[in-house]
Amino acid sequence: MEVEEEVRRIVEQVKELNDSATSFVSSSSHEELSLRKRSSLVDASITRLHSTLLSDKHHDPKLLDKAFFSSLSLLEEDLQRARCMLADGDTCSFLPSKPQGRFVRMFLGPLNVRASRKDIQLKVKEEYNSYRDRTALLFLVFPAILLTLRSYVWEGCLPAFPVQLYQAWLLFLYAGLAMRENILRANGSDIRSWWLYHHYCAMAMALVSLTWEIKGQPNCVQKQKGVRLFLQWAMMQGVAMLLQNRYQRQRLYTRIALGKAKRMDVVWGETAGVDGQLLLLCPILFTLQGFEAYVGLQLLRTALTGVVGEWQVLICGILLVVMAIGNFINTVETLMVKSRFKAKMKRSKSRAELD
Amino acid sequence: MEVEEEVRRIVEQVKELNDSATSFVSSSSHEELSLRKRSSLVDASITRLHSTLLSDKHHDPKLLDKAFFSSLSLLEEDLQRARCMLADGDTCSFLPSKPQGRFVRMFLGPLNVRASRKDIQLKVKEEYNSYRDRTALLFLVFPAILLTLRSYVWEGCLPAFPVQLYQAWLLFLYAGLAMRENILRANGSDIRSWWLYHHYCAMAMALVSLTWEIKGQPNCVQKQKGVRLFLQWAMMQGVAMLLQNRYQRQRLYTRIALGKAKRMDVVWGETAGVDGQLLLLCPILFTLQGFEAYVGLQLLRTALTGVVGEWQVLICGILLVVMAIGNFINTVETLMVKSRFKAKMKRSKSRAELD
Repeated sequence: MEVEEEVRRIVEQVKELNDSATSFVSSSSHEELSLRKRSSLVDASITRLHSTLLSDKHHDPKLLDKAFFSSLSLLEEDLQRARCMLADGDTCSFLPSKPQGRFVRMFLGPLNVRASRKDIQLKVKEEYNSYRDRTALLFLVFPAILLTLRSYVWEGCLPAFPVQLYQAWLLFLYAGLAMRENILRANGSDIRSWWLYHHYCAMAMALVSLTWEIKGQPNCVQKQKGVRLFLQWAMMQGVAMLLQNRYQRQRLYTRIALGKAKRMDVVWGETAGVDGQLLLLCPILFTLQGFEAYVGLQLLRTALTGVVGEWQVLICGILLVVMAIGNFINTVETLMVKSRFKAKMKRSKSRAELD
Repeated sequence: MEVEEEVRRIVEQVKELNDSATSFVSSSSHEELSLRKRSSLVDASITRLHSTLLSDKHHDPKLLDKAFFSSLSLLEEDLQRARCMLADGDTCSFLPSKPQGRFVRMFLGPLNVRASRKDIQLKVKEEYNSYRDRTALLFLVFPAILLTLRSYVWEGCLPAFPVQLYQAWLLFLYAGLAMRENILRANGSDIRSWWLYHHYCAMAMALVSLTWEIKGQPNCVQKQKGVRLFLQWAMMQGVAMLLQNRYQRQRLYTRIALGKAKRMDVVWGETAGVDGQLLLLCPILFTLQGFEAYVGLQLLRTALTGVVGEWQVLICGILLVVMAIGNFINTVETLMVKSRFKAKMKRSKSRAELD
């Protein structure tokens, strides 16, 4: 019987296939393990050497002669470049990984979100950037439409449904951002952990504001002041996000070209822009943070003076203030790191010229 | 200078490491590709042979002699076993994968959620089961507490906050379930797609119900009837989930031992229980579905007669009815598949005895 023969052959093939798969998996996992060991050794010695160099430099700068100091700086740069080479080459997938965040585990379980190949990692990175671009645009357009319709169609009074739709979209958006950034971190990006906490706060706020009844007539203008302020803030946020995305990409490409950043890095804080553009971005960011804090304080005031007695007002106010403060601290820290880095560059440059 | 020497050595090491990583990646991806090709060929021929066998059997049963017919059934079983071997062996990671669902892409981007090793796949599976156990318990306990407090502490009137907390938890829970089941599917589990759609509906409902104001006094009992019914339904759901989880595990272990299921399979529909327990589970499931439809229709009635004019009531009603109908159809389908399977088993057994 012909079919019987075929079935037998297929069972045979399956067995063979399983055997070769098993031998492949075991041999490749053996090699992988050795690569993993070697790369974590090299990684550890880079870290050790880096701290040696730093302590050498800070030991007693007066005693050091200038040539020695600048050679130390050069060595430091070499080391930094070696680290980038390690992270950007094919070794990347064998480097010791950061533990996956609780957020990812909560939604995905124990799945490994580390991409096994550099090209997939970069695809994830690229998709993250385009996701940010798309959302920044919506961040601008969505509240703008709501506010326009409010003025010209809805006669000063926002209906509940579109606002709630917007809040649901915010929840969804921040969940997506938090998930993607957690994944990028697991893949070796140096994204600051504050941004993750920020997204968790924003998610909490979107969730809370969904339960917050949007009151209608009479006295709409008074009751909806909080919502209106929030929408205005969101529009500014959209503009800032668009600007930021542009800078960060430009800046990142420059830094990658100089071998100073790894390709998986996302943002060096919010302000890692090109210098001329930074002059534009910084005031916008600080204004945004100020406005965010203002909206938060307004909400707190209405909650505490008892004009609106809902708990949602209180929670949203606290969350907005926390986010504003966190954003401010992070922006300042980034600016300080940046200026230190610049000063160092200048110093080593002038020393090199002196010598 | 000693440090300089060390830095040079490390740069050297990084280069070497990158080279060996590159050669490992390229050689292993070459082998992987060939394994992938071989396994998709074998997979395709199994599918082809299976359909040949089926058409042979259905061609004209009267003309076939019994011995031939039962030998065909035996061949079919062999083929099924070969398929399980393929999916459960190390070949699993090289089999052609189902495309990843939009839901996963929306939250994670283009990340590959397919686990590269069988042991990770099984860990994901185990975690999914324990997640279901935990949530089933909460499904029972959370609404039970709310309803108890309502009767004994809150004097018949549910306050908004705990109910909204419960709704937010539902949203979070169903998002986690949908994500995990999408991942299991991508890893070769045969989970029915209806359950995914069910979870999307449930997520939509949780989101909508969050925006639905929980009305207080006066006339609380009347206004909160929908919420109360929903909580009662959720408690029943919790009991059913606990029972289901127990059955499905038992049943699955039996089927795996018989070589009839792959280890990644989750549920053969809701009713793949052990026979004696099925007698208990089936009525519970049908009652649950009936009650779900009843709650949905009640909501629709209040929405359409205009007692409560909010759009949320209408949407929740429609979603509940849709979920009830979908669950019912799926349970019936599963029962039919099951009884067909049983009849076949009996037939082939009696034929084998006759021969």
